[in-house]
Amino acid sequence: MPVNPESVEDYSTFVGFNEIWDIRQLADNLGGARVLHISSTAYGGSVAEILNSLVPLMKDLGLKADWKVIEADEEFAAVNKFLINRLQGYEAPWEPEMIDIYMKKSRENAKGFADNYDFIIVHDPEPIAILPMLIESKRPSGKWIWRCHIDPSGSIPDAWDFIRDFLSSYDAAIFTSRDFTPMDINTRTVIMTPTIDPMSLRNLPLDPHLVESIVSRFNVDPKRPLIVQVSRFDPWDDPLGVVDAYRIAKRKIPELQLAFVASVNQDDPEGFHYYRKTALKAEYDPDLYVCTNLQGIGSIEVNAFQRAADVIMHKPVREGFGLTITEALWKSRAVVAVNTGGIPLQIDDGENGFLVENTSECAERVVTLMENPQLRERFGKNGREKVRDNFLIPRELHDYMNLFFSLSG
Amino acid sequence: MPVNPESVEDYSTFVGFNEIWDIRQLADNLGGARVLHISSTAYGGSVAEILNSLVPLMKDLGLKADWKVIEADEEFAAVNKFLINRLQGYEAPWEPEMIDIYMKKSRENAKGFADNYDFIIVHDPEPIAILPMLIESKRPSGKWIWRCHIDPSGSIPDAWDFIRDFLSSYDAAIFTSRDFTPMDINTRTVIMTPTIDPMSLRNLPLDPHLVESIVSRFNVDPKRPLIVQVSRFDPWDDPLGVVDAYRIAKRKIPELQLAFVASVNQDDPEGFHYYRKTALKAEYDPDLYVCTNLQGIGSIEVNAFQRAADVIMHKPVREGFGLTITEALWKSRAVVAVNTGGIPLQIDDGENGFLVENTSECAERVVTLMENPQLRERFGKNGREKVRDNFLIPRELHDYMNLFFSLSG
Repeated sequence: MPVNPESVEDYSTFVGFNEIWDIRQLADNLGGARVLHISSTAYGGSVAEILNSLVPLMKDLGLKADWKVIEADEEFAAVNKFLINRLQGYEAPWEPEMIDIYMKKSRENAKGFADNYDFIIVHDPEPIAILPMLIESKRPSGKWIWRCHIDPSGSIPDAWDFIRDFLSSYDAAIFTSRDFTPMDINTRTVIMTPTIDPMSLRNLPLDPHLVESIVSRFNVDPKRPLIVQVSRFDPWDDPLGVVDAYRIAKRKIPELQLAFVASVNQDDPEGFHYYRKTALKAEYDPDLYVCTNLQGIGSIEVNAFQRAADVIMHKPVREGFGLTITEALWKSRAVVAVNTGGIPLQIDDGENGFLVENTSECAERVVTLMENPQLRERFGKNGREKVRDNFLIPRELHDYMNLFFSLSG
Repeated sequence: MPVNPESVEDYSTFVGFNEIWDIRQLADNLGGARVLHISSTAYGGSVAEILNSLVPLMKDLGLKADWKVIEADEEFAAVNKFLINRLQGYEAPWEPEMIDIYMKKSRENAKGFADNYDFIIVHDPEPIAILPMLIESKRPSGKWIWRCHIDPSGSIPDAWDFIRDFLSSYDAAIFTSRDFTPMDINTRTVIMTPTIDPMSLRNLPLDPHLVESIVSRFNVDPKRPLIVQVSRFDPWDDPLGVVDAYRIAKRKIPELQLAFVASVNQDDPEGFHYYRKTALKAEYDPDLYVCTNLQGIGSIEVNAFQRAADVIMHKPVREGFGLTITEALWKSRAVVAVNTGGIPLQIDDGENGFLVENTSECAERVVTLMENPQLRERFGKNGREKVRDNFLIPRELHDYMNLFFSLSG
């Protein structure tokens, strides 16, 4: 049964004592450094998810770690949504008055900043302008690091130019992959994939009986073949394309079921629109399920659906890293995913999953896996090892310690 | 470990074979009657929760049971919110144009009704006008039953008059308690408290280690005394009053923690406002937690928090029946709740919980229970028996079979 992590040593089960020892050694050399994480939300989304684990672990390493969430009203949130869409190459609106809103709110957020940290990690575009705002009066002490969780390499140029101006005052920038890193920056860059916490509620081991109970309660039959896609509901996650692939595969495997497991943010009209659209399509098929927080999906329920799946499908049009794939691989699931974003960093095609290019290939691979339990098992085993070696939270801690150490020089 | 209910017989563990036998006998006499439930939502809230269990069980009993959700746009939902508030005695707006919206939408919903049921159970005020609309052209076949889940006994008169006009064409009306039943109706009335499903995700047994893991992950210390209130966040649930009671109790028990566990509907500005207000109050106290679906609370997580609690507090200003109390009693928890609505139907003061009148009494009772594990244990044991004898879903099935049978005469 799971134990609640009380110290980094609890992770030695997963990554070995030597790794934990190395991390502690590095942390000890930092002599209780003061670390501040700044992000835009305290809940929802992968940044908040990982900070919830990372900050206590940094404290356990002897650092004085804090986490501050910037103030954001609806207006600022809307402007940032447009900005982030543009940074990911999507032609969202971008008007001078949006820049005004962004600058005004960043200035306000900068006012609340207390200048007594050694390392300040600023997550994603929302809080990036705080440092330049502070510099207008006086450069604050400490090393400033921008952690970019999205893929800005295909940005609409004006959006990236906007961010790059702010970034120029930073001491370092972290990107998820070399491919995600824009060419035209002078700031020192570091590559760091995100990680998952194997002891979080989304990943902790669950009793198989509980897993069965949970999916049954959403009317899914745990005895029949099941595809699961865990995602948000927006056009980029292409839920309708997933339905198409499932329909094709179902011709060969009539017993096949598909469950979308999603967090629906009712605040987000676009996402909610897609949710409704998918739900509508599901209505005519008794084997197609749309399970959301509205029906009681929380972290444990997501965990259970991933474990109940025979195949995890992930078919976004664009993807940053794809942490739901990491979660699925860690649970030894066979994954079929599109070859985009950070997905090929995780899936070695034919080794621990299948990378696909289109809907019909996706359907074909699902059929192959469903008909071949040995292959699913092999993929699952390899997937878990891939995550163990690369994408568990101690690795991220290790990377941060290295980065802090190198910036202290 | 929990087993997924596949038939009503699975509930014999809880209520005995004789009870299940009686229910089957009654159902057999109904000869495969066609039953339709009509409600306003498919998810969220206690009506959807119980119908999710009740409809499959009715099918298992050999009835042809269906469940239809009426169409509701934002306008209709808003009008109904006002109407329900007024029915519960709260001076919400009520204008002629709201009546127009209500009538127009009810007429549309009536159009979709297929006339081939023996028993039609209409849940709550949202769909009640469907029958009168149908009668305008021709009375549909079948016996029509209105199931009122709220307490309309203290209604603003015009709101109840509005509903009563529609109700007059029904064959029977079900109220939760004699006290909730308005005096001035000619329709046959039946008293039926709601029930919980012991095999639903909110109630199924959970491994104590998993319970610990879950609450720890929301930063609650499972080793220290814990009060939990499971609720929505609106003024009627008085979260700020709960905080006050906790603060007083904490003077005597410095280790005390309070966790609010809530589903926050971001669509509901009033609820969200209260959520923010409570969250703000919590910010200054490291032992006060506000845990919502935004942080990953789903059904299993609610279940775990109820099990982790030493004392469950429930302090609404008004309450229908209070199903979260039923859930807590079933989990053998000691409950401190205000003496309002359906709560005294569940709590026998000093036997399976404490009924309180105000904040200071509430705080006092919490202290008594926290200092007295034997008392908590006795209350817990009695509470579970109270629920077993009165508030488990087989009893509700039994009541429906009796009602159908008596209406068939």
